[in-house]
Amino acid sequence: MDPTRHPIQKPCSSYRLSTAATNSYGYVIGVDVGGTKIAAGLVDSKGRIHNPIRTPTDTSSPDASIKSIASAVEALISQSGVDRKFIQGVGLGIPGLVDPVSGIGIASVNLQWRDVPVKAQLENLLDINCLIENDVRAAALGEARYGAGQGVKNLIYLSIGTGIACGIILEGKLHYGSNGVAGEIGHAMIDLNGPLCKCGGYGCFEALAAGPAIASTAMSKIQFDQDNLLLKICEQKIDTLTPEMVFLAAEQGDLLANETLDTVGSYIALVLQFMILAYDPQLIVLGGGVPMTGSLFFEPVLRRLYKRAAESWVFARALKPGLIQLTSLGENIGILGAAALVSNLQ
Amino acid sequence: MDPTRHPIQKPCSSYRLSTAATNSYGYVIGVDVGGTKIAAGLVDSKGRIHNPIRTPTDTSSPDASIKSIASAVEALISQSGVDRKFIQGVGLGIPGLVDPVSGIGIASVNLQWRDVPVKAQLENLLDINCLIENDVRAAALGEARYGAGQGVKNLIYLSIGTGIACGIILEGKLHYGSNGVAGEIGHAMIDLNGPLCKCGGYGCFEALAAGPAIASTAMSKIQFDQDNLLLKICEQKIDTLTPEMVFLAAEQGDLLANETLDTVGSYIALVLQFMILAYDPQLIVLGGGVPMTGSLFFEPVLRRLYKRAAESWVFARALKPGLIQLTSLGENIGILGAAALVSNLQ
Repeated sequence: MDPTRHPIQKPCSSYRLSTAATNSYGYVIGVDVGGTKIAAGLVDSKGRIHNPIRTPTDTSSPDASIKSIASAVEALISQSGVDRKFIQGVGLGIPGLVDPVSGIGIASVNLQWRDVPVKAQLENLLDINCLIENDVRAAALGEARYGAGQGVKNLIYLSIGTGIACGIILEGKLHYGSNGVAGEIGHAMIDLNGPLCKCGGYGCFEALAAGPAIASTAMSKIQFDQDNLLLKICEQKIDTLTPEMVFLAAEQGDLLANETLDTVGSYIALVLQFMILAYDPQLIVLGGGVPMTGSLFFEPVLRRLYKRAAESWVFARALKPGLIQLTSLGENIGILGAAALVSNLQ
Repeated sequence: MDPTRHPIQKPCSSYRLSTAATNSYGYVIGVDVGGTKIAAGLVDSKGRIHNPIRTPTDTSSPDASIKSIASAVEALISQSGVDRKFIQGVGLGIPGLVDPVSGIGIASVNLQWRDVPVKAQLENLLDINCLIENDVRAAALGEARYGAGQGVKNLIYLSIGTGIACGIILEGKLHYGSNGVAGEIGHAMIDLNGPLCKCGGYGCFEALAAGPAIASTAMSKIQFDQDNLLLKICEQKIDTLTPEMVFLAAEQGDLLANETLDTVGSYIALVLQFMILAYDPQLIVLGGGVPMTGSLFFEPVLRRLYKRAAESWVFARALKPGLIQLTSLGENIGILGAAALVSNLQ
């Protein structure tokens, strides 16, 4: 089937644009490889996702997970009916440390990978060019290619979910740093007396403001306040508290939940103002599970930053209106970021 | 006099290299414009400073300060005996916000400048090409051209003196950011309950760790401890305490002075680890009055960072041996940084 002559007729609900698919470049496949699930989709030049699929990740071994990725891609191609020759390549966003040049997954806790030759193995199985990148860096490219960052040369994508990290684009290119660590501010210590982080350090930003930290902060507050909505929501089992429960309780006006989000928001504002003064970017896009909760999370953070700008003229020079935005790509950022690895080369 | 045939015979004591001056490019003049003094020198291609001079800055008006800079340059040329045609240009490092392209000094508190056409006025007076830059950014270029950063493409120069700021070089070029604010981390809030900064903000890094903060931190501690060496050094007049007095007392083992430096060092280590994770540079050079005190300041900061690296594997990837160095250019960094504005173009 020639997609330029026979555009796919039934675009799925995740299309960003409502116009019909026309694509002189063919398609790229974006694969968001997570520790529990693989999300993949065929992406056209306008950032529309066709035939998105989700399938569990087999993490029983690196070989098994590579095979589950290959199966997902094969299923996607088969379901779409697009001829393989119109697929320019497969981009993969991977949680962890990767070498995009050699295509090796160096270390991923979620996937239990150490030095896995992802690119070579997948190209062998699929017979299509594959490119890999850290998922947050891929998301930054996705924002630059398909999202709020179109035409922006210097942007930071800050992902706050189970973990926290930045993808940094400078002069249109990803900034890796000398050791591939640039943007790993989830492990910046921001509280000298803060809790233990899974990286082994204390007081890391991630240990104070990522999703699990929202739950644990709420848990620690509950012990001093036994009469609240959160306890009802989790049916008195505070160990089962999730960030979503905290957001739910906050929405309903629960004081403790709102205090928790205020505390977490203060850390996020602190780190944002540091990154703004360090990089002075044109745009910061917030993504990941925590910012997805929307205004409940975003407005208090912005309020703190504008208060800071009102105090400090240096900071006010950098905090321009619209500097910080929530991702407009929603959950699609995973697939679109991965797709951008290939489409940015075209 | 032709300096290629008649190299200057009596190099001053500030030469970095001991070999005789030979220079096929001629000379550049570096001018370090401070709020109280102007330091200038003729710099050859090897970073040797010839005929350095110091003269007071006339800050009675912008015109007066421009004239005092021009007089200093004329005096330097005259004393050196070098023909003006062998001087490639004059570089000026200026404390404050400058536009290096238009050559306008936008704002300088120390010089009491607002929108001063420095380049145009000086070129008119001197008839030599002039280039201006913020002094800390110029110092970063100086490190890259003449100091520890030779051959290093990604480096950060962190100046800790009366104020704090970074000059950031990425891929061999200064990184300014979208509003010229990149690197202004002296005004990053690092303590939510910190003191008022002169920028108007609270808890700024500069208000906690720059020279004046060292004195004020010691002052605040003295009130709780009346029997100590610092009080003797300042003759019981705690309002007259200087950072130098704190360093002197610390050297002699004074507990309060050492506690003060430990507190300040903890803030500096905190910011360094953040910058390392944000940028992952090849090299960080520390300069300015505070680091010049040497091991008393430097070792505790490094110790904290290595402790952090021992805890966190993410940070350990970036904290390579030799990553952080004290400037080897000493007080010459002001003149050499300014000279690098011109010599980097050759």
